[in-house]
Amino acid sequence: MAQKPSKKFILGADVGGTNIKTVLVDGRGEILAAVKRPTLGRRGRDALIERLVLTLKDTVKKSGAAMRDVAGAGIGFASPLDPGKGMVFNPPNLPGWSNVPLRDILMQKLKMPVSLDNDANLVALGEHWKGAGRGARCLVCLTLGTGVGGGIVLEGRIWHGAGGIAGEIGHMTLVRNGRRCACGNKGCLEAYASAQGLVLRMQELLKKRKVGKGGKITPENIGKWARSGDKLANQAIKDTGVILGVAIASIANILNPDVVVLGGGVSNLGGYLFDPVREEVKKRAFPKAVEELKIVKAELGDSAGALGAARSLMLSLDG
Amino acid sequence: MAQKPSKKFILGADVGGTNIKTVLVDGRGEILAAVKRPTLGRRGRDALIERLVLTLKDTVKKSGAAMRDVAGAGIGFASPLDPGKGMVFNPPNLPGWSNVPLRDILMQKLKMPVSLDNDANLVALGEHWKGAGRGARCLVCLTLGTGVGGGIVLEGRIWHGAGGIAGEIGHMTLVRNGRRCACGNKGCLEAYASAQGLVLRMQELLKKRKVGKGGKITPENIGKWARSGDKLANQAIKDTGVILGVAIASIANILNPDVVVLGGGVSNLGGYLFDPVREEVKKRAFPKAVEELKIVKAELGDSAGALGAARSLMLSLDG
Repeated sequence: MAQKPSKKFILGADVGGTNIKTVLVDGRGEILAAVKRPTLGRRGRDALIERLVLTLKDTVKKSGAAMRDVAGAGIGFASPLDPGKGMVFNPPNLPGWSNVPLRDILMQKLKMPVSLDNDANLVALGEHWKGAGRGARCLVCLTLGTGVGGGIVLEGRIWHGAGGIAGEIGHMTLVRNGRRCACGNKGCLEAYASAQGLVLRMQELLKKRKVGKGGKITPENIGKWARSGDKLANQAIKDTGVILGVAIASIANILNPDVVVLGGGVSNLGGYLFDPVREEVKKRAFPKAVEELKIVKAELGDSAGALGAARSLMLSLDG
Repeated sequence: MAQKPSKKFILGADVGGTNIKTVLVDGRGEILAAVKRPTLGRRGRDALIERLVLTLKDTVKKSGAAMRDVAGAGIGFASPLDPGKGMVFNPPNLPGWSNVPLRDILMQKLKMPVSLDNDANLVALGEHWKGAGRGARCLVCLTLGTGVGGGIVLEGRIWHGAGGIAGEIGHMTLVRNGRRCACGNKGCLEAYASAQGLVLRMQELLKKRKVGKGGKITPENIGKWARSGDKLANQAIKDTGVILGVAIASIANILNPDVVVLGGGVSNLGGYLFDPVREEVKKRAFPKAVEELKIVKAELGDSAGALGAARSLMLSLDG
């Protein structure tokens, strides 16, 4: 297929607390170049913006293309933000940021259209575009990592809600008087289905049985122990899966998605996690909501956010 | 404003277990005629369909218009159904119905376009069009009656989800091992925030305090007792409001609506219910999700469903 003569590529960036990940893609989402660099957020706001601009330019250079061939840049940021206004509010992991009009700053520096969105929303959009949720009418994505990030893609577009903060599925209340969550609420999904939530569950079970454990309690080790037959590790993962299943059953009845994508470190626990999730959803949700619901592992890993960012920019150009 | 010469009116019908309510409206939703008749569902499927057709025709007659002036009929049905296929599955309150292609049957009999949707979805659409949710980008409507009906309106249209059953907010799990719900799940919102849920809460409180009550325990009486200073009645309504608030806080974080409309008998309890709802939402949801969220009482009462049905037909004609 002949390509259009100019502006045929799109940049995508995923700016996290630890790394900046970028891609340059064509209109079909094929990756021409990718770069990953430490964010170095401690160096302050202006230094990070310069670093991001440089990394985006280097990504284009690496591909052999020129900046004039790039139609725009989509940016994902690990922060509460207003996608409509292109404004970053207060990233929890980056000092010196507060109400920064990042989109406009980048548009000036890059001299091209820029779009800005929450990283978890863009992971959802990335998985819809090129990953585990291709073709879904309604995709819900949960990233089970340090926190539980959520994103909702309805008919190919991120659902932002009335105020730009929709998709915070990690902060639905699962246990009314449950564990305190970092957001201030009690009993959020995040407090149970994040890496830390799983570790806490393992610690609770160990304490109850009054047994110790050689080796640090991490999601990876809990997975390893479960695979080698450790019943408590198996139980900790199962309990996490059940509570995740309760949440997804509610989401199934409310939004009736056709695909739920689970990503992040905790999603690497395979059937130990997915089996209780699926069982609980089947037990609780309307049969019509379960029949055609696929609950699947994310496919794009590290590049989901940057790919979703590029896609988001494309959609913003289409209007 | 001059009206178009023909097909200027739309029929809407809300077919419930007890009554058929119909309206004839113009394109701006002004009601020209309304009819309410008992459903008489015991007489069977064919009799009910004839009765519905007759009631629709009588509604047009009552307005002084002619059937040839009617662009179509929107029908709301208190049943699980597939709006895309126009198929009614199995209405819980109507014997002799199972997988009935009601839309096509009515199109043949009425000789006009017909649309079919779940009654709770149409109440939400009605409140968005002419009621408490006018202008909302994202409206969530809960009808707190015999059950808890739910509907989601996104940018002016009902969100049906991938399989047509989205909006079942009454069946999100609030208490993991809670009360058994009619749907088969445990701890659904409906088991707590329906009329029956409120009555059960009042009974629990009376039993705990070992006191009796003169007069039947109904939502109306509980409201009357609360207004006359009865602390237990006040507590029963408050507990119901808190659990409703937990649910709406989750919905606020997930969908970020600008308006939540509460209708049905339980919503008549005023501040006794709405105050704890709003307090709990504020306590739990993200500040950005609460700032611009209005939680309001439904305005259209009995005619919301039929108005929403008419609106749904209009939208289906627009494509």
